[in-house]
Amino acid sequence: MSLLPLPESLVPFLAPYLPHDTNNLPFITLTYAQSLDSKISKRKGEQTVISHLETKTMTHYLRSKHDGILVGINTVLSDNPSLNCKYTKTHTITPIIIDPLFKMRTYYKSSRMHLNVSDGIGVPPIIVVCEDMYDLEYDSWCDEFGISIIKVNGSSSSGSVLTSSKIQLNWMDIFMNLKKHGLNSIMIEGGAFIINDLLNFKINGDLDFLVNSLIVTVGPVYLGIDGVDVSPKNGVVLKDVNWWTGLQDSVLCARLGSL
Amino acid sequence: MSLLPLPESLVPFLAPYLPHDTNNLPFITLTYAQSLDSKISKRKGEQTVISHLETKTMTHYLRSKHDGILVGINTVLSDNPSLNCKYTKTHTITPIIIDPLFKMRTYYKSSRMHLNVSDGIGVPPIIVVCEDMYDLEYDSWCDEFGISIIKVNGSSSSGSVLTSSKIQLNWMDIFMNLKKHGLNSIMIEGGAFIINDLLNFKINGDLDFLVNSLIVTVGPVYLGIDGVDVSPKNGVVLKDVNWWTGLQDSVLCARLGSL
Repeated sequence: MSLLPLPESLVPFLAPYLPHDTNNLPFITLTYAQSLDSKISKRKGEQTVISHLETKTMTHYLRSKHDGILVGINTVLSDNPSLNCKYTKTHTITPIIIDPLFKMRTYYKSSRMHLNVSDGIGVPPIIVVCEDMYDLEYDSWCDEFGISIIKVNGSSSSGSVLTSSKIQLNWMDIFMNLKKHGLNSIMIEGGAFIINDLLNFKINGDLDFLVNSLIVTVGPVYLGIDGVDVSPKNGVVLKDVNWWTGLQDSVLCARLGSL
Repeated sequence: MSLLPLPESLVPFLAPYLPHDTNNLPFITLTYAQSLDSKISKRKGEQTVISHLETKTMTHYLRSKHDGILVGINTVLSDNPSLNCKYTKTHTITPIIIDPLFKMRTYYKSSRMHLNVSDGIGVPPIIVVCEDMYDLEYDSWCDEFGISIIKVNGSSSSGSVLTSSKIQLNWMDIFMNLKKHGLNSIMIEGGAFIINDLLNFKINGDLDFLVNSLIVTVGPVYLGIDGVDVSPKNGVVLKDVNWWTGLQDSVLCARLGSL
């Protein structure tokens, strides 16, 4: 399916929030679409269309400005997402899958991601696995599909994310490794577990937020109490706030600040 | 405290959503301010400033267009709100308190509402109580303060709201009674329990929503998972959607539609 044209006013609106050069970590953009009641889907595992097609175009425009796109394994399993860039077809964006238990090993071959690689409209993912879950014998499988693996310590207690599989992964390890893989800018697209964790995650001795830019689409719908919530453990104030209004949705751009 | 001036562009923006003549029920506007993660306060019972002062002015402008303003007893007890209109000082708006257990009888005398009446900048409230909780001996207390009482059946199972005190009240009874009291337009301002219930409440044999207009201010902040949630039991699609952007907040105007 081809994309609607990008609304012209989005280009200057988004410009101040696009990636710029950073030091030892990639530039991190956190982006997702939510209902008015802050749900990203109607039910766990159920993909839900929230945003208008013009803001879908915005997502692919943003992908054209980033080197990598990161999602959790549960999002992959429920949505079977393409994780490629339809806006600038020559642009290559690398999918990064947070997958502590390495479920991708059984799923990847049947995924849309793999189909895209076969069709020449996508590149193989980088998979982030818990080192305890990785066996040397998997190397040949990875080689076959051109997949890179980042193994991280799965028992770190500080600076870590408790994934839905109850295994903690270290975000700093992950992002420093991704930088070494040549990814200088990464979009985080979900799911809720990863979004909520990164909205609170700080670096530099708790002085700065890891997330550099926040871009949230709000769709005019209530998904109701059974929906999957975005709401971080601790409150976060936003700064450098700007809103854009489309045919249906409102888009917020901001940076994270402290309360 | 005096209000900031009303942003001029809000007048044409709000106009299509303001009250018009209706039949046997008052025109109902549901309005509140929420964080991006759909919380109306940081914690239960803790009043939280979410919106910019210019959208506070909007609230008082809206009050100048309505005959009544309805909130639940818990909102009264935690916020001690004025529930008057500071925008057009000659405009009288009647506070309506949903108070099944009649807690106002011990609280009212010390409330800001009562102080406003004494100061000539507010009128006494209408209190909606569960009929089982009302005793004839309370009549003299009500007369003393000029308070009107609406007694409703507290055991209706259909078309009812389960309040936080676990007593069900019948919305249709309440609003038809308020119309008889001469209130042709009512703003619903909270709390979450009442907002969530009315977002799903339908009339005319489940064909139409009771709420005629929805006006939601979204402030650029996450209040976090301990906050008080707005999210109705069932999903609701919005129609006739318009967004307005202020210095800090985004305001959505819409009507409720079916999924």
